[in-house]
Amino acid sequence: MDELFKCDANYVPLSPVNFLLRAAGVYSGRTSIIYKRVQFTWDQTYVRCRRLSSALLSLGIQKNDVVSVLAPNTPAIYEMHFGVPMAGGVLNTINTRLDAGNIATILKHSGAKIFFVDYEYVPLAKEALKILINNTNSSSALPLVIVIDDLDTPTGIRLGELEYECLLAGADPNIELKELKDEWDPIALNYTSGTTSAPKGVVYSHRGAYLSTMSLLLQWEVGSEPVYLWALPMFHCNGWTFTWGMAARGGANVCIRSPTTTEIYKAISDHKVTHFCCAPVVFNILLEGSYNRRLPHKVNVLTGGAPPPATVLQSMQQLGFHVTHAYGMTEATGPALVCEWRQEWDQLSPDVQSKLKARQGISVLTLAGADVVDKKTMKSVPRDGASLGEIVLRGSSIMKGYFKNVKDTKEAFKDGWFFTGDVGVVHPDGYIEIKDRSKDVIISGGENISSVEVESVVYRHPAVAEVAVVAMPHSLWGETPCAFVVLKKAVRDKNIKEDEILRHCKMNMAGFMVPKKVVFMEELPKNGNGKVVKAQLREMARRIKIPAGEAPVTVSKKGRGVTGSNGNNGRSDQQVHVLAVSRL
Amino acid sequence: MDELFKCDANYVPLSPVNFLLRAAGVYSGRTSIIYKRVQFTWDQTYVRCRRLSSALLSLGIQKNDVVSVLAPNTPAIYEMHFGVPMAGGVLNTINTRLDAGNIATILKHSGAKIFFVDYEYVPLAKEALKILINNTNSSSALPLVIVIDDLDTPTGIRLGELEYECLLAGADPNIELKELKDEWDPIALNYTSGTTSAPKGVVYSHRGAYLSTMSLLLQWEVGSEPVYLWALPMFHCNGWTFTWGMAARGGANVCIRSPTTTEIYKAISDHKVTHFCCAPVVFNILLEGSYNRRLPHKVNVLTGGAPPPATVLQSMQQLGFHVTHAYGMTEATGPALVCEWRQEWDQLSPDVQSKLKARQGISVLTLAGADVVDKKTMKSVPRDGASLGEIVLRGSSIMKGYFKNVKDTKEAFKDGWFFTGDVGVVHPDGYIEIKDRSKDVIISGGENISSVEVESVVYRHPAVAEVAVVAMPHSLWGETPCAFVVLKKAVRDKNIKEDEILRHCKMNMAGFMVPKKVVFMEELPKNGNGKVVKAQLREMARRIKIPAGEAPVTVSKKGRGVTGSNGNNGRSDQQVHVLAVSRL
Repeated sequence: MDELFKCDANYVPLSPVNFLLRAAGVYSGRTSIIYKRVQFTWDQTYVRCRRLSSALLSLGIQKNDVVSVLAPNTPAIYEMHFGVPMAGGVLNTINTRLDAGNIATILKHSGAKIFFVDYEYVPLAKEALKILINNTNSSSALPLVIVIDDLDTPTGIRLGELEYECLLAGADPNIELKELKDEWDPIALNYTSGTTSAPKGVVYSHRGAYLSTMSLLLQWEVGSEPVYLWALPMFHCNGWTFTWGMAARGGANVCIRSPTTTEIYKAISDHKVTHFCCAPVVFNILLEGSYNRRLPHKVNVLTGGAPPPATVLQSMQQLGFHVTHAYGMTEATGPALVCEWRQEWDQLSPDVQSKLKARQGISVLTLAGADVVDKKTMKSVPRDGASLGEIVLRGSSIMKGYFKNVKDTKEAFKDGWFFTGDVGVVHPDGYIEIKDRSKDVIISGGENISSVEVESVVYRHPAVAEVAVVAMPHSLWGETPCAFVVLKKAVRDKNIKEDEILRHCKMNMAGFMVPKKVVFMEELPKNGNGKVVKAQLREMARRIKIPAGEAPVTVSKKGRGVTGSNGNNGRSDQQVHVLAVSRL
Repeated sequence: MDELFKCDANYVPLSPVNFLLRAAGVYSGRTSIIYKRVQFTWDQTYVRCRRLSSALLSLGIQKNDVVSVLAPNTPAIYEMHFGVPMAGGVLNTINTRLDAGNIATILKHSGAKIFFVDYEYVPLAKEALKILINNTNSSSALPLVIVIDDLDTPTGIRLGELEYECLLAGADPNIELKELKDEWDPIALNYTSGTTSAPKGVVYSHRGAYLSTMSLLLQWEVGSEPVYLWALPMFHCNGWTFTWGMAARGGANVCIRSPTTTEIYKAISDHKVTHFCCAPVVFNILLEGSYNRRLPHKVNVLTGGAPPPATVLQSMQQLGFHVTHAYGMTEATGPALVCEWRQEWDQLSPDVQSKLKARQGISVLTLAGADVVDKKTMKSVPRDGASLGEIVLRGSSIMKGYFKNVKDTKEAFKDGWFFTGDVGVVHPDGYIEIKDRSKDVIISGGENISSVEVESVVYRHPAVAEVAVVAMPHSLWGETPCAFVVLKKAVRDKNIKEDEILRHCKMNMAGFMVPKKVVFMEELPKNGNGKVVKAQLREMARRIKIPAGEAPVTVSKKGRGVTGSNGNNGRSDQQVHVLAVSRL
């Protein structure tokens, strides 16, 4: 069998760029992009991407050069998903919610050769570049800046001399494409949000991006002619691969600058949107803005991040959204587990259904493995829905590694697995449910308490809009849960007390899991991705005075050692004073 | 970016075997196989495949050894799709409709180490082995024979000492699996039917099989929990990859020994079948046996091979079958083009819809390219729906090559393309339509006539059940179409004449395309795959006496040279006598 060699006819490196080449042929006249009053077809998008690629080459972009972009969901950033790799470059989409300092750090670390900036983000980019200049010795290390003006209504705003549309207009779409020789070559560089550490640059290969795209289309059952609304930023794992996926499916990309309630509902009815992805936080604004009107047609929603509370899922469903829940991370090129629905669940009560739907689910097809293991023994935990372990993944959709960061790359990959840092259980049917981030697990008297589990109970209280539970130091039990609660606007004047929330908790969870403290807040601290910054809440919990009968306690920053505090600022990291208290 | 290496966590060789490993975990308790009164779940199928793999290893199977099987669609042949590659072997499924001589040729050419034989095929296998023994010098070259008895109702029939179920029962399911190191390694060996030449052994890689499976699931939009009926033999391109595909989807495989009308309708209603594949010839038996009863639920049918006539497609649709038309070949791991439906076509008349549906369509996602080219210039033909060219394909789903056949492999792969030998056109919307096999095109007075196009018109005559059109030698035009027609049973006594068919043709096609002769037959000559053997019809056409006013002509076997004949057997291959005749 060894005489049968690879040749150009039977071995073509896997790359999402091929999806565009195919779309240009077989979906040529079909709508590719809708942005305000501008529309393109797939053959036009193909030509525009080739122009971009040609322009990048004439600007000196070489193989593996990084091209950064700071933009909301516009045609330009969509086109870069093909135009940049077609020129041999690596696309680095930057989170627009980051501050100038973070952006400067990314530009420096990535060594970006070109920096595309949407007109709206010119002030932010200016500031970032100023910081970059101050931190850089040679001007040759600075990226070439190209502004992307609005395609529908040009503003004339500039930062430097070049503008995206002018660049495209002047480029030759017919120059020969760079042929991809090795599917392991990098295609994208995405920085993690880094709530607890410095951002890490996650590198995807063409192979990984291609396979992730295929398997997510399959897992979400995206059929032909989807109309995809860009509610999820393309800078999140390349729009969880659906940037490339829409080319594969010949779908229409409805681009909006920001996912407001009005924009989303308008797009759904104007363009007959069939699919979108979003963080669960978007559900809240959709529910508030819906006025309980049902959608004109079914809309499929894929959501990731924090598990959406059952009540929210139910309300979404009632409006006509078909919600699928997924779990993933930048390192896994977006969703790694998807909660695939089972027909037998149709018979269950809505309540049970919502609980099943909130699970993270089963591995996407491209993963060769997903497991929950005891980190000490590296053995799979029993499939009992209760035994906690760390979620590990392996397969060709896992990142190549962290850019210029051998140490973290080595730490993430161990024993043939990628360690997610998330803690979960496996149900008897094989579905995985996340219980917490490793670092968010509350260890109380030797028992692991999942902060997510406590949150989901608190959420079910009708007055609660948002909740986050973190570890609060406890002199006897080491740690104990503390709940930070945002009440619904409608009930804020109703004088809801801590007691009421605690009573609800006691009725719905084991005693040791009941928070010892409920703190009401106007809003929860969140990072650029809309994720709650639990580190900040933990810091607050450290300073909370325990009600009478309990001694004031704090937890050390270093590790989980229980420390007594002076009841003031809790910064006595070095000392350990355990005070005896009775359990409440 | 070069410091980021492949490791076991982020680079796993692509193999369909992974679909089973995943199914065992995430679809464990779900039905995998239904065969008569026997049912298995995915965890059971997994264990059975591991037992098979273990048994093969203990019988001495080594990497790249060929394991042949002669069986209808039973659980055993399904399990071999995983158990054989898990042991490092290459699966060779043999067409059960072949004769003993062909089977012996395949066993010899493939060098099969083990030969599994379904109990029903023991007499055929015995005969094949006898021929093999006569043609083989050393007995060590003979395969070890293992009978597969009926799983539901064992018959006790044996051929040699070993039996499949006993083998599995005695095997250890827990021995370590052979780890796949290189996804380019062979997984299957499928011999082409070879109507015109000796059968060729097409080799698939793990990579090709994996990617084909993924892209066909996507293209056919196979959602979760399919119930797949095995109407298509698994020995056809591994059931066009749906053997592996059902494991990927956690579907139920409904196995039947032969796709009779009764069996198919029974399975549809007993097991709520959602999907099956078949050759278009199966449509006829389904329509005849339907008694115009509508199906209890929608059933998706994927069909390949000869394009189904529009009338047949319409009738199928009316019963509740949702037919998708595909085009492929063994060398492309099954379907390479699929006629993806477009919403805008919903508005068209049923007649136009059927015509659109009979097109071969657009390339599956895994192909990096599909084109129709002028073979001389290697340029794409215009997208005008009229210019003929050869269909060429490239991508990782194309075979590794022909086993022990460097010459044919080299001929098939040229200029970075696989040459299909099929002639087609590209419509303005990018959809490809096959007009003929290269060798079936009729060249009349310099015009290319697609035999398929003439057939589709003849088919529309209400009395016609089947038709095949081939080239008949013509003294002036070189070649001219000759139609072989099978009338419907109901009209056989109605004395339908050649004139009536010709009148129908003249009203519905260009004059030069109208057959000069219509021959009525009881049935058309077909090969083991149910394909019409046009070579045989051409041979018959050579001997036909042209009606008064036309001179008797024959076409040379060698090339397309026009030769006069003695009006008797037309075997005067060496002489060329052009006789002038008037065009009819």
